[in-house]
Amino acid sequence: MSKKEFLYEGKAKRIYRTDDPGKYLVEFKDEATAFDGKKRGIIEGKGVYNNLISAYFFKLLEKEGIPTHYLETISDREMLVRAVTIVPLEVVVRNVVAGSLSKRLGLPEGTALPAPIVEFYYKRDDLGDPMLNCSHIQVLGLATEEELKTMRELALRTNEVLRRHLEEKGLLLVDFKLEFGRTAEGTIILADEISPDTCRFWDRATTERLDKDRFRRDLGGVAEAYAEVWRRLVGSEEDVG
Amino acid sequence: MSKKEFLYEGKAKRIYRTDDPGKYLVEFKDEATAFDGKKRGIIEGKGVYNNLISAYFFKLLEKEGIPTHYLETISDREMLVRAVTIVPLEVVVRNVVAGSLSKRLGLPEGTALPAPIVEFYYKRDDLGDPMLNCSHIQVLGLATEEELKTMRELALRTNEVLRRHLEEKGLLLVDFKLEFGRTAEGTIILADEISPDTCRFWDRATTERLDKDRFRRDLGGVAEAYAEVWRRLVGSEEDVG
Ligand SMILES: Nc1ncnc2c1ncn2[C@@H]1O[C@H](COP(=O)(O)OP(=O)(O)O)[C@@H](O)[C@H]1O
Ligand SMILES: Nc1ncnc2c1ncn2[C@@H]1O[C@H](COP(=O)(O)OP(=O)(O)O)[C@@H](O)[C@H]1O
Ligand SMILES: [Mg+2]
Ligand SMILES: [Mg+2]
Repeated sequence: MSKKEFLYEGKAKRIYRTDDPGKYLVEFKDEATAFDGKKRGIIEGKGVYNNLISAYFFKLLEKEGIPTHYLETISDREMLVRAVTIVPLEVVVRNVVAGSLSKRLGLPEGTALPAPIVEFYYKRDDLGDPMLNCSHIQVLGLATEEELKTMRELALRTNEVLRRHLEEKGLLLVDFKLEFGRTAEGTIILADEISPDTCRFWDRATTERLDKDRFRRDLGGVAEAYAEVWRRLVGSEEDVG
Repeated sequence: MSKKEFLYEGKAKRIYRTDDPGKYLVEFKDEATAFDGKKRGIIEGKGVYNNLISAYFFKLLEKEGIPTHYLETISDREMLVRAVTIVPLEVVVRNVVAGSLSKRLGLPEGTALPAPIVEFYYKRDDLGDPMLNCSHIQVLGLATEEELKTMRELALRTNEVLRRHLEEKGLLLVDFKLEFGRTAEGTIILADEISPDTCRFWDRATTERLDKDRFRRDLGGVAEAYAEVWRRLVGSEEDVG
């Protein structure tokens, strides 16, 4: 599977075509951005950990019957995935109040929610990724009602699988963002990444943050937190190659 | 029906108890606010016109089978209404892109929507009235799923009645905000007001704004616009007593 034409570059990854039109290669970068790109930096090793952690979660979800774009790991920063047309929505699932939800609901960070909250944001950097409701999504034609229902259900199932798995590893899954894509056949599958860039992981014992909030809020130990998440997943004996 | 104990004062109205515990008296003020109270002013005669216009619309809606809190007009600034517990949601219906929707969707003001958009905002001045989705509303316990469905349906029916009626009067109903309340029996009815403070009315021929946007955007002729809406509704021959 040879890397071919560079397709596009986002804030955290580069996408390449391969010799199979149905497959893309994803390359994870160390670049980090926050607050609509107003804050920028490098988190040494982030790309390697996000590649490892995303592959780990995608494999776990596939085992539980959730379709993902993951095909195989190519190198320490590269993953082979199914080529999809990304639905321009960020699907956020929340178990505990944090970040923007704290301001929206007027509830302190750390408040446990009685049931998971699902939110949809318009993936439009130029607009600041505004929140949308189903009415907006229909009018913009971003997804059909059927697709929206599928994404919501897959997001909630993903939450159940990840939340329980992470609990065993001593981590609280506070919230996370998913992106979905349409395959050539029109099936909705999980795409993009699932990593400390896109999830909030708190240590269950200490509530220490082990995710990108360390970068957003200048808490220090950013790269160490990403490594710690990986260590929790695979156990201290394994190390990054 | 004698005005009794003062109950509470909002940005545009004062609410009083009456000698009937099931009825409140609403007094419409000339005070105007915008941008979460950051902009303040007086619109001479606004209270009188909003009392007239709201009564006019509530009567029209009742005739079409939509339950409202309106009982009778008491004076030029006073209306007798059914006492309700206000659901702390602002229900917005939009036919044409304007205001915050233009920023949210990245579409120019004036874009006609293929279908009406319904939005829910949390009525919380201290939080800046953030937009909520159904997930948030359930978790906050602001309304049951059944009540949410009822409010959505009543809002869309209200839109149809008002939009058609205003069209005949040469006015385009761009968007509007409703508040609903629960009666003692738990029935959801339309409450608050329907006026140039809470609706966007554009002249169909010239697209001139005949609503609170004249105040928000310092366009001048604010009081005149409120009077013009009333004149359009009842015809030029009638005058305010
Ligand atoms: N399987 C896939 N097929 C096509 N595009 C994908 C796939 N998975 C992720 N993408 C897209 O790759 C782009 C690069 O990712 P990223 O650097 O995270 O971008 P962004 O700056 O938009 O967050 C994003 O637009 C993302 O939606
Ligand atoms: N029928 C009703 N029963 C009880 N309260 C009502 C009724 N109709 C409107 N209200 C409430 O009266 C208050 C005063 O109105 P207003 O001045 O517009 O307040 P606000 O500053 O919240 O917009 C608001 O909280 C509104 O929800
Ligand atoms: Mg991304
Ligand atoms: Mg009001």
